[in-house]
Amino acid sequence: MSSEIVNCAAYLNGKRISNFEISNITEVLQTPDHFVWLGLHEPSEETLVFIQEQFKLHDLAIEDAHNAHQRPKIEMYGDILFAVLRTANLNKTNHHIELGETHFFVGPNFLITIRHGSTISYSDVRKRCESTPHLLEKGQGFALYAVMDAIVDQYFPIVEILEEDLQKIEDKIFKEKPTRQTTEDIYQLKRELLDVKRAVSPLIDMSNRLMRFDITLISIETQPYFRDIYDHAIRINEMVDHARELLNTALEANFSLISISQSEVSKKFAGWAAIIAVPTMVAGYYGMNFKFMPELEWHYGYPAVVLFTVSLCVIIFFLFRRSGWL
Amino acid sequence: MSSEIVNCAAYLNGKRISNFEISNITEVLQTPDHFVWLGLHEPSEETLVFIQEQFKLHDLAIEDAHNAHQRPKIEMYGDILFAVLRTANLNKTNHHIELGETHFFVGPNFLITIRHGSTISYSDVRKRCESTPHLLEKGQGFALYAVMDAIVDQYFPIVEILEEDLQKIEDKIFKEKPTRQTTEDIYQLKRELLDVKRAVSPLIDMSNRLMRFDITLISIETQPYFRDIYDHAIRINEMVDHARELLNTALEANFSLISISQSEVSKKFAGWAAIIAVPTMVAGYYGMNFKFMPELEWHYGYPAVVLFTVSLCVIIFFLFRRSGWL
Amino acid sequence: MSSEIVNCAAYLNGKRISNFEISNITEVLQTPDHFVWLGLHEPSEETLVFIQEQFKLHDLAIEDAHNAHQRPKIEMYGDILFAVLRTANLNKTNHHIELGETHFFVGPNFLITIRHGSTISYSDVRKRCESTPHLLEKGQGFALYAVMDAIVDQYFPIVEILEEDLQKIEDKIFKEKPTRQTTEDIYQLKRELLDVKRAVSPLIDMSNRLMRFDITLISIETQPYFRDIYDHAIRINEMVDHARELLNTALEANFSLISISQSEVSKKFAGWAAIIAVPTMVAGYYGMNFKFMPELEWHYGYPAVVLFTVSLCVIIFFLFRRSGWL
Amino acid sequence: MSSEIVNCAAYLNGKRISNFEISNITEVLQTPDHFVWLGLHEPSEETLVFIQEQFKLHDLAIEDAHNAHQRPKIEMYGDILFAVLRTANLNKTNHHIELGETHFFVGPNFLITIRHGSTISYSDVRKRCESTPHLLEKGQGFALYAVMDAIVDQYFPIVEILEEDLQKIEDKIFKEKPTRQTTEDIYQLKRELLDVKRAVSPLIDMSNRLMRFDITLISIETQPYFRDIYDHAIRINEMVDHARELLNTALEANFSLISISQSEVSKKFAGWAAIIAVPTMVAGYYGMNFKFMPELEWHYGYPAVVLFTVSLCVIIFFLFRRSGWL
Amino acid sequence: MSSEIVNCAAYLNGKRISNFEISNITEVLQTPDHFVWLGLHEPSEETLVFIQEQFKLHDLAIEDAHNAHQRPKIEMYGDILFAVLRTANLNKTNHHIELGETHFFVGPNFLITIRHGSTISYSDVRKRCESTPHLLEKGQGFALYAVMDAIVDQYFPIVEILEEDLQKIEDKIFKEKPTRQTTEDIYQLKRELLDVKRAVSPLIDMSNRLMRFDITLISIETQPYFRDIYDHAIRINEMVDHARELLNTALEANFSLISISQSEVSKKFAGWAAIIAVPTMVAGYYGMNFKFMPELEWHYGYPAVVLFTVSLCVIIFFLFRRSGWL
Repeated sequence: MSSEIVNCAAYLNGKRISNFEISNITEVLQTPDHFVWLGLHEPSEETLVFIQEQFKLHDLAIEDAHNAHQRPKIEMYGDILFAVLRTANLNKTNHHIELGETHFFVGPNFLITIRHGSTISYSDVRKRCESTPHLLEKGQGFALYAVMDAIVDQYFPIVEILEEDLQKIEDKIFKEKPTRQTTEDIYQLKRELLDVKRAVSPLIDMSNRLMRFDITLISIETQPYFRDIYDHAIRINEMVDHARELLNTALEANFSLISISQSEVSKKFAGWAAIIAVPTMVAGYYGMNFKFMPELEWHYGYPAVVLFTVSLCVIIFFLFRRSGWL
Repeated sequence: MSSEIVNCAAYLNGKRISNFEISNITEVLQTPDHFVWLGLHEPSEETLVFIQEQFKLHDLAIEDAHNAHQRPKIEMYGDILFAVLRTANLNKTNHHIELGETHFFVGPNFLITIRHGSTISYSDVRKRCESTPHLLEKGQGFALYAVMDAIVDQYFPIVEILEEDLQKIEDKIFKEKPTRQTTEDIYQLKRELLDVKRAVSPLIDMSNRLMRFDITLISIETQPYFRDIYDHAIRINEMVDHARELLNTALEANFSLISISQSEVSKKFAGWAAIIAVPTMVAGYYGMNFKFMPELEWHYGYPAVVLFTVSLCVIIFFLFRRSGWL
Repeated sequence: MSSEIVNCAAYLNGKRISNFEISNITEVLQTPDHFVWLGLHEPSEETLVFIQEQFKLHDLAIEDAHNAHQRPKIEMYGDILFAVLRTANLNKTNHHIELGETHFFVGPNFLITIRHGSTISYSDVRKRCESTPHLLEKGQGFALYAVMDAIVDQYFPIVEILEEDLQKIEDKIFKEKPTRQTTEDIYQLKRELLDVKRAVSPLIDMSNRLMRFDITLISIETQPYFRDIYDHAIRINEMVDHARELLNTALEANFSLISISQSEVSKKFAGWAAIIAVPTMVAGYYGMNFKFMPELEWHYGYPAVVLFTVSLCVIIFFLFRRSGWL
Repeated sequence: MSSEIVNCAAYLNGKRISNFEISNITEVLQTPDHFVWLGLHEPSEETLVFIQEQFKLHDLAIEDAHNAHQRPKIEMYGDILFAVLRTANLNKTNHHIELGETHFFVGPNFLITIRHGSTISYSDVRKRCESTPHLLEKGQGFALYAVMDAIVDQYFPIVEILEEDLQKIEDKIFKEKPTRQTTEDIYQLKRELLDVKRAVSPLIDMSNRLMRFDITLISIETQPYFRDIYDHAIRINEMVDHARELLNTALEANFSLISISQSEVSKKFAGWAAIIAVPTMVAGYYGMNFKFMPELEWHYGYPAVVLFTVSLCVIIFFLFRRSGWL
Repeated sequence: MSSEIVNCAAYLNGKRISNFEISNITEVLQTPDHFVWLGLHEPSEETLVFIQEQFKLHDLAIEDAHNAHQRPKIEMYGDILFAVLRTANLNKTNHHIELGETHFFVGPNFLITIRHGSTISYSDVRKRCESTPHLLEKGQGFALYAVMDAIVDQYFPIVEILEEDLQKIEDKIFKEKPTRQTTEDIYQLKRELLDVKRAVSPLIDMSNRLMRFDITLISIETQPYFRDIYDHAIRINEMVDHARELLNTALEANFSLISISQSEVSKKFAGWAAIIAVPTMVAGYYGMNFKFMPELEWHYGYPAVVLFTVSLCVIIFFLFRRSGWL
């Protein structure tokens, strides 16, 4: 059980009082004015059952906490708040976005965080909180804010990378020839934008509810902090929507340019076809077998014809060039 | 009448007290503290009329219950709740989604389920409920939840299969040549996504209303369970919307790639046309009948021309290859 | 005046008491507990003025009732309800949808229906109402429901026919060659769907308001009936939206297939051009007039060349066939 | 100053009492129970300053009234209502829509209308009002209604002309060959529809607010009249939306038909190319210089070849015709 | 620190009482009935910390004020209002829109403005305010309005220039040949419209909230001024939406015209190909080596053939011209 328990500590007035074994949780929870901050990582079913009994969590919430792949949400079970957030992590080696989840239980005297999949550890967040005891003494609501804030802030670099990807696609569309790859890149970027949107957009409503909650779990001084998360979620959401709308236009612009470049192919083909067809026709004429064709008898007939057709080709070439077909 | 009556039992404190004949329903309904759970499958009009009299159901609700093809909805007739849900079943042999319907009547001391079309039997759900009497004793509201939950959970595997279909279509679009079949597949997938959406999206509002209902039919402890259904409905809905938005982009990407591949056809054609047209023109020249064409007299004139045109063709070939036309 | 007055009767406790002449209306309206059901068809201005005086209707409502081409709406003028509904009728000979309108005035003791344009007569509805006096005794609100219900139910067969039209268009798109007609059919179907939508969608809001109205005109027992109309309006609306969304996708799919079939034309053309161009080039070669072309002297030179080019063409043919160009 | 003052009169009980000079306005405004109806046309800044002082209007409203190019809106400054409406006028010579604006100030005992740009004069409206004193005695609220109604009713013929334009575009799309002009016409119609929409859609909200206003400026009996304007605004808006949605589909249908007609060009070209290429190839064959080509020696070789190639061309022609390429 | 402090003055009854050093701020803030207007430009972190202490500003607001790149918003921290606005500036040399930000703190007796990036100085606004002491005496709320109004009014010329750009694009689309540049211009204009929209659309909600705020910071007489900003924000927003919808249609129209012009290329090519192919075929015929071809022996055979083919070409030319292919 120990590897799943990442961290387990009791706090009083914003200061860490003790690390303790999870098995002693019952008595710790009974100490007045303390709150317990418990960090779990992909806990087994038994651990969850044990936690459920100790903290008196609802069946349905525990079921959700056990299955990852929940949508971001916030729910009250009696006086216990259950929240789910999607986390995102940019894998720097292959430039892929890796998604994870974090579940929260916030009770009158505890905060439990449960991480699933690819997420950063929250020990840094915890340290930062412990370094500002005057804030942490606002209670488990502030700790909740601190972790949520860390999760939301991870989306900014991701969206910035997606915006750079859009920039690259724009360059490809407007400065290079249309390729299959560009179209596929547009599609993949759309998919990633939708993934980020799906993870972030429920956060707007969640943080909005948290900053208005009339419950004792989140003290009034903590509410502006949730407004800060709300603000960040709206900004990320707006950046994603902006990129999506541009991407849709890019897809259509790409399509227009494919058509224009096809048109250019046709024009070029037509131009060169004309330059070849005209001398072919002339040559065909002097290949006729009429008895009486005076030019054929002329001494300089052959060079004259060659000169004539070459000149004709040159003229045609410049005519086409001027009208932009070549 | 017996084949339409799938199940007919009375419950007390979450435990099944008795199976009974439908004809004895009057006296069973008068036993205090009991609730009756009656399961019907495509009942005849007479059965419905009999049921209506016994349970005092509203004319309009019975009319709806008789005609399948209702939209999912929830309605109160006096103190009796009438609900309609669409059910979906994946036919594993032909990969088609088969739709059905289930209607519910929930009264002060009864739950009636009426199945139409392709639906699974609810005997498994009933067994599961009976195995947790501490939950079932919350009353017919919990039984309603259990059936609705079973119905909603059937949509997850269906949406997953539709997501796999989308994945296959993506592979076809980006890795294979554009075909008519791909376009038709996109259209059919769109149709199926719309069908699922139509069945599931009203569930969001329905479960939302059920989890807030201030009626005695659904006890306060049962409400979080309906929130669970609400949550599942939102998730399915979101998955469908996600797939639809991607599918729309896929349709446009497909279209771009059709254009690109048409452009490639034009380029290839132009390239090969040039390779054939040039030697044809040269041959035409030496087919002219001028008296004085010195080359025609040369001993190696013929092989020289052949060599010349072959070289020309090779050069043209590599020029086109370099510029990506061949 | 008589041809405009389709029906004029007084009801007591859900039973028809008397048919009477419109000129006697004043005294009939003073009889307590009676309600008058008056049916008009495209009334003249004088008739409307007479009606207005007798029933004390508002100027603006009468103005609307005189001009057809109102949008569906519901309005209260004092204690008199004025409603407008669009009616649709499928002309079975030319498969066209014919639109009409019906206006309603509902007062404390009367119901007036005014039909404009292509609408069915409501005498059937009246008969059906009179056959269920226990329902009709709920008053003029129930009679209003009965007529509205008849109007709304007429949209179901129309939408089903439009869905069949969509099915036919799908077959044309995916099973036949793209034609101008298919594109025009898509456009016309879109137009008809929009017409039905425009007629039906205001009904949702109207019936919603009627089922919540806190006025004495519509008794509480009648309200579930308006919920039934609400339900039907939502279903029709949903069917139309579903068809529209599919139609939009069909338009795009059609467009993709036009492009694919154009691509196929190009490929076929290219293939056959190659098959003709190659022997033409070969023939040109042996048409050159070089003095020293040993093949020309060979006895079997000619059949050899014919055999060679025919073989070449066959090979090219199979190469193109294999790569799907022919 | 006189040319800007179109009309200036005092009313008592719905009847015009006196026309007076604007300079006497102060005493007229002090007469009890009277209301003043003042009509201005593009007033100068001094006039506006004079008016502002007399009627005690707010700085910001006067600023707006001076600058045309406001959006339609309704605002309360203390107990004075300020409203802006866009007016439209169909120039019958060049079929262009000319836009103007009218601003309104409504106070406890006055109505001021200020016209800008291309608008009709409101003297007709004033006469109509004066001919129904029983309505006009409802006060300046009714006069406001009368002018607004006249403005809104001017949009109906305009939208009908735009609908006719759409009809003409449909005919061009489906019955004629695709041209650049059709595409430009679609674009221009879209622009005009957007202009009308922009002028009319704020009216819905404005009239909705006016029909609910709990202020003494608009008496309760006048409110149904604003509901009438609300109704007209919704109808115009709906007509515009309908035309816009059809126009979008028309644009896409137009595009499909451009592609189809391009496809037809390709097919026709391919067909005729084949008909010319085949005899050219045959002629090339008999132009070869082989010593031993028995056909060349035949007496009827030449006519036989001509007959053969002509027959071949005829066969090809009918093959292509049957498959719809020619 | 002095270069960051643009302006620092105290006001009493709308009149500037004193300019003072920022270091004396503590005592100035204690003078009753005064309000302090402080203007900063990209302040350093120390300055902000100093300001925070003096004015008792919230940590989170100061953090936001330090980081530019906030979204426009309005937030209350206790009785202090914090607002962020995006500013836009048209660089007249390169026609680019340069974006900046301005942050506001409004407290019981102060207004602080903090400018970031490319923004105009607000000294002009300050002067204008000081020239109307009867307005400025409404307090810091009016000063806030004056600065916001100046910021919003800067968007009008920008949107007008974007509308002119749209006009230029329309001319290019409908009067010139389709080019890659036009497509790129459409894309860039879309991007700029989105940027303006992103900066302006939050202003609607912000000014709406300010004109309803039930706080003492903004006096009731100041509220109509914020309604004026609300009105301007809506107008700018509407202009941008209008331009965006037209631009989308322009993109599609552009695409249609690309297709039409491609079609014209194909037709022209086909026409000229026919004019060249026919004489080539004829020449090929008389190049056949049949022994018995009577025409070859005719004295005027050659000129007859030349005349015949030239006439044929002329006929073909006019046929194609008539049908619009040339």
